[in-house]
Amino acid sequence: MKLATLRNGQRDGRLVVVSDDARRCIGACPVAPTLLDALERWSGVEPALHDLARTVNAPAALGTMPFDARQCLAPLPRTWQWLDGSAFLNHGHLMERAFKVPPVADFETIPLMYQGAADDFLGPHDDVALPSEADQIDFEGEFGVVLSETPMGVTAEEALQHVRLIVLINDWSLRAFGPREAKSGFGFLQAKPSTAFAPIAVTPDALGPAWQGGRVHLRLQTQRNGEWFGHPHGGEMHFHFGQLIAHAARTRKLSAGTIIGSGTVSNTDVNVGSSCIAERRMVEVLAEGTPHTSFLRFRERVRITALHPEGAEGPFGALDQVVVMALHESPQKSSAVLVR
Amino acid sequence: MKLATLRNGQRDGRLVVVSDDARRCIGACPVAPTLLDALERWSGVEPALHDLARTVNAPAALGTMPFDARQCLAPLPRTWQWLDGSAFLNHGHLMERAFKVPPVADFETIPLMYQGAADDFLGPHDDVALPSEADQIDFEGEFGVVLSETPMGVTAEEALQHVRLIVLINDWSLRAFGPREAKSGFGFLQAKPSTAFAPIAVTPDALGPAWQGGRVHLRLQTQRNGEWFGHPHGGEMHFHFGQLIAHAARTRKLSAGTIIGSGTVSNTDVNVGSSCIAERRMVEVLAEGTPHTSFLRFRERVRITALHPEGAEGPFGALDQVVVMALHESPQKSSAVLVR
Repeated sequence: MKLATLRNGQRDGRLVVVSDDARRCIGACPVAPTLLDALERWSGVEPALHDLARTVNAPAALGTMPFDARQCLAPLPRTWQWLDGSAFLNHGHLMERAFKVPPVADFETIPLMYQGAADDFLGPHDDVALPSEADQIDFEGEFGVVLSETPMGVTAEEALQHVRLIVLINDWSLRAFGPREAKSGFGFLQAKPSTAFAPIAVTPDALGPAWQGGRVHLRLQTQRNGEWFGHPHGGEMHFHFGQLIAHAARTRKLSAGTIIGSGTVSNTDVNVGSSCIAERRMVEVLAEGTPHTSFLRFRERVRITALHPEGAEGPFGALDQVVVMALHESPQKSSAVLVR
Repeated sequence: MKLATLRNGQRDGRLVVVSDDARRCIGACPVAPTLLDALERWSGVEPALHDLARTVNAPAALGTMPFDARQCLAPLPRTWQWLDGSAFLNHGHLMERAFKVPPVADFETIPLMYQGAADDFLGPHDDVALPSEADQIDFEGEFGVVLSETPMGVTAEEALQHVRLIVLINDWSLRAFGPREAKSGFGFLQAKPSTAFAPIAVTPDALGPAWQGGRVHLRLQTQRNGEWFGHPHGGEMHFHFGQLIAHAARTRKLSAGTIIGSGTVSNTDVNVGSSCIAERRMVEVLAEGTPHTSFLRFRERVRITALHPEGAEGPFGALDQVVVMALHESPQKSSAVLVR
């Protein structure tokens, strides 16, 4: 089953069930007005949502409408918790080597994870309004899972049973803030503005063989201004999503609607490219001694999709966004202070 | 005006307006069923809430009921964002000295802030269910502010206009996870289980002279098992709340209902005690070479209130909680791994 959220002037939008071919959709309002509402009552609403999925996939179905990803908000326009891991260890290993960062203890046995802002997600075609190019604007293509309520102390194996939906994410990042925030011990905050989501959230069963062992076995392709940037494979994720969920739930329960991200999809094979500029720059530092790929400027466009093995666009649809200058930047708050 | 949220079997409880003497309250349902709803429509609902405040404060008012803090959830049982600063620099200075931690760059000009879980706050008398005493269970008494929608790039001065309510917080902490999570660069996650709130949220005007310069000028008193632990003064906060909000909003807008915390209230005068065990242990290390105050065990009780200058209990009511063992701890997830 595929779900999406259409713009309707309300903060949480309205839930629709999308056809398998992503050409049509049908309103889910009588079942659940919003996706967050559906997740909070999932076992009660799932059968009725599956009925709608059968309807929207039937030929010449009544009550359906064309599906237009440009009308989509994020599947969850806001939610109660967004936790992002860094489960593709190649990314961290590159950082250690390129910047001679001391390795984190237990790097291969305990996941890294930060908590991000869940109150204001961007839709797949929303402009990305940011205050300053000097903040070193970057994208991060990754996969994520959306959970039902998950108890404290869940094991990694049990945790996978709480995965309700799989999503595709661009975790927009401002690299100029990263080093100081990492060193502060308090983690990323200014370095992580609003996160964006591809239009379609997919149930695990609908991913078929692409959902195996708690990992998304699809390539994640990034294009910058229409040019290929990378297509690393999600199957190389070191910690699977069950392990990330168990890490997150060790000392807290996780509310329905919690989203857990994989971190930047990254492969050891350098020929498949990267899912963020920072990583490509690390590769350049290691190969050539200095980075030469620049961070994003305003008006640049970033497109992220998953790819089926044969190269067709994957089940989540595409993120396709342009970075623009935020209108309300305060002149007092020049970024120059942090960018040295 | 004083607001609180009563238990009603729903996740967000029901909003009540509390009398100035905290003895009576009146349901706000016709105006706004929940506090989050009220915050999202504040300018529309504020006059009607003030009308209810006049009613509940009138002698022999009809439609009111006794106010029982034991029936309270957190004023916001869940919200979209919870960001916690560390604005009492004495706490950080002690840490640097006691543990010879290298000072954070720009410590006195750029606030430290982490993002915590906002999906599952505890009420003032809720048990604090945690998986293991070996996790080094600690409290952190602090003040916080609840915001209306706040634009990206707001200045520190403008930011104070977005403060709708002031709250009293126990930011429960698990110190065993802290050093690794701080070193990882990704910030605190397992170290920060559910945060708890005193029953009453207070508008800035109702704090009177105790709300000055974006700081809460009241002592914060902590008792452990009925014994005095500290009563440092909130006025010694280095960054005021406007500065903390501006820091949080530098690269993101903040949704209505966002809570910003001050971090542990801490004073340079060692005689006023501390608002967390970790700090008292640092003081002991500096004075005696070794800490001797233990972290919390199950069945210990922690009571936190603000104090008026003359010593009476402050306007937020009290947090009074007992730490208990969480029932669903998975045996696979022994804390011993992290506690060395």
